[in-house]
Amino acid sequence: MNFKEELENRVRYAQENIESFLPKEEGFSRQMAEAVNYSMLAGGKRLRPVFMKAMYDMLGGTSEMIRPFMAAMEMIHTHSLIHDDLPAIDNDEYRRGKKTTHVVFGESAAILAGDALLNYAYETAFHAFDLSRAPEEMEQAAEALKILGNRTGINGMLGGQGVDVENDGREMTKEMLDYIYENKTSALIEASLMIGAVLAGAEKETVETARQIGSRIGIAFQIQDDILDVISSREELGKPVGSDEKNHKTTYVTLEGIEKAEEEAGRLTEEAVGLLLELPGDSSFLKELFLSLMDRRK
Amino acid sequence: MNFKEELENRVRYAQENIESFLPKEEGFSRQMAEAVNYSMLAGGKRLRPVFMKAMYDMLGGTSEMIRPFMAAMEMIHTHSLIHDDLPAIDNDEYRRGKKTTHVVFGESAAILAGDALLNYAYETAFHAFDLSRAPEEMEQAAEALKILGNRTGINGMLGGQGVDVENDGREMTKEMLDYIYENKTSALIEASLMIGAVLAGAEKETVETARQIGSRIGIAFQIQDDILDVISSREELGKPVGSDEKNHKTTYVTLEGIEKAEEEAGRLTEEAVGLLLELPGDSSFLKELFLSLMDRRK
Repeated sequence: MNFKEELENRVRYAQENIESFLPKEEGFSRQMAEAVNYSMLAGGKRLRPVFMKAMYDMLGGTSEMIRPFMAAMEMIHTHSLIHDDLPAIDNDEYRRGKKTTHVVFGESAAILAGDALLNYAYETAFHAFDLSRAPEEMEQAAEALKILGNRTGINGMLGGQGVDVENDGREMTKEMLDYIYENKTSALIEASLMIGAVLAGAEKETVETARQIGSRIGIAFQIQDDILDVISSREELGKPVGSDEKNHKTTYVTLEGIEKAEEEAGRLTEEAVGLLLELPGDSSFLKELFLSLMDRRK
Repeated sequence: MNFKEELENRVRYAQENIESFLPKEEGFSRQMAEAVNYSMLAGGKRLRPVFMKAMYDMLGGTSEMIRPFMAAMEMIHTHSLIHDDLPAIDNDEYRRGKKTTHVVFGESAAILAGDALLNYAYETAFHAFDLSRAPEEMEQAAEALKILGNRTGINGMLGGQGVDVENDGREMTKEMLDYIYENKTSALIEASLMIGAVLAGAEKETVETARQIGSRIGIAFQIQDDILDVISSREELGKPVGSDEKNHKTTYVTLEGIEKAEEEAGRLTEEAVGLLLELPGDSSFLKELFLSLMDRRK
């Protein structure tokens, strides 16, 4: 396997798949569709649908049912970015070098486009029921929907985001930070791997192992983000402190120091790879992907 | 049938049912659950779940599967109120005499609570799959979910809301106003009646008739709101013009005059009752409910 080539192919497949489900820019709701599509096409690693499909392939999944769920997952992730960037929350004017949705379309349109995108994610996932009405596959789709809803909601991503925003600028305990990382960052990565497993027809224990892998990779990914915030500020900007420290944002790095944070991210990634090797199928791509995320520079 | 008593009983059933699905206020996401529950318990007619259950009963539905959908419908409606009231949209500080969510919990918390409530509506609806795994009932639940997603989203309520907000303060054409009333107001009423029919096992034509009834009742309801805006200002506040006219809001009344608006609302209600009588089952409660909505004073 050439990892770089396979990653490119898998990202391209995810991208084409996402594009195939986007809303049409027509009729009275044209501007809302434009705002949704602007956000969906503003770049991004497409990591979550790539995770989902890789787990699905590894466990022997072969149906088309994975496709609406891949697109839905990226829509939910993008919905969270539109709302995070709003003036009342992070007030970010740029993301990935492009103007954020509220800067281009206005604040009220960005709130509603974010709502529409969250809802459209479910509309998209429900297409799974058009692909098969075989009872077993319908049960898998129902289970995948329950995971998607739970990991997105008040006990998942949105819950983590809520606690993060509530405590903005305050010092946080390690326990609270763990909650935020587990939910705001890990929840959708967990859901991606779990849904890949469920739709491949995996047993409950395999789905639980997928969740544990996702939890560890998600937290390691967030810690690596915190580390990069410090390193890139030092190296590229020549500043002695990162933006998190400057903004008095509590992170694993501000709480534990960079060395311990690096250890923790490495340990979590190793654990995830260990769990991955317990599962059947060819895990070489996912293993390389997990390791590459620890070596990333952005 | 004592209509008033039956309405009270049905509203109470809807209310108890909604309460049974609300999120627990515990753990780190306690504040988010409090904001969600504050909004859900701030009053309201519970009209949409009452519509849903009445259609379901009329067509002979008997399972518990209607319950999560009733609650989900009211959650989606309430989500739209939280976000409509935000400073960037309608900037309303009071609703039904109570402080709006963003006034009590802050703007960022209200944005995220609205998101969480929309998502929680789907989490709640997915409970239908826990109640039955019989293939026929799973198909009905899948169909109900598709209707719920479609009528809420970019081609439904949220699309109508988007067009309304985009054109705020501008003069609108009748065509645009029709689109807004059909989507912003009617879409969830259509969905309520359609889901009631689908879960009762109705044929496609019956579901389509339910949609047509909902469309007419929804538009008539909105026109009646426009009329009440003018009348209540005249009678109760002694003002010569209503708030819509003062805010340069285009409505059926500002566009066509109060007399023609009253005629139109009456005509639509009559059509809805006519369609209702084509359906099997005892339609007396829904008929009375439709007629009573035309006589309301608020």
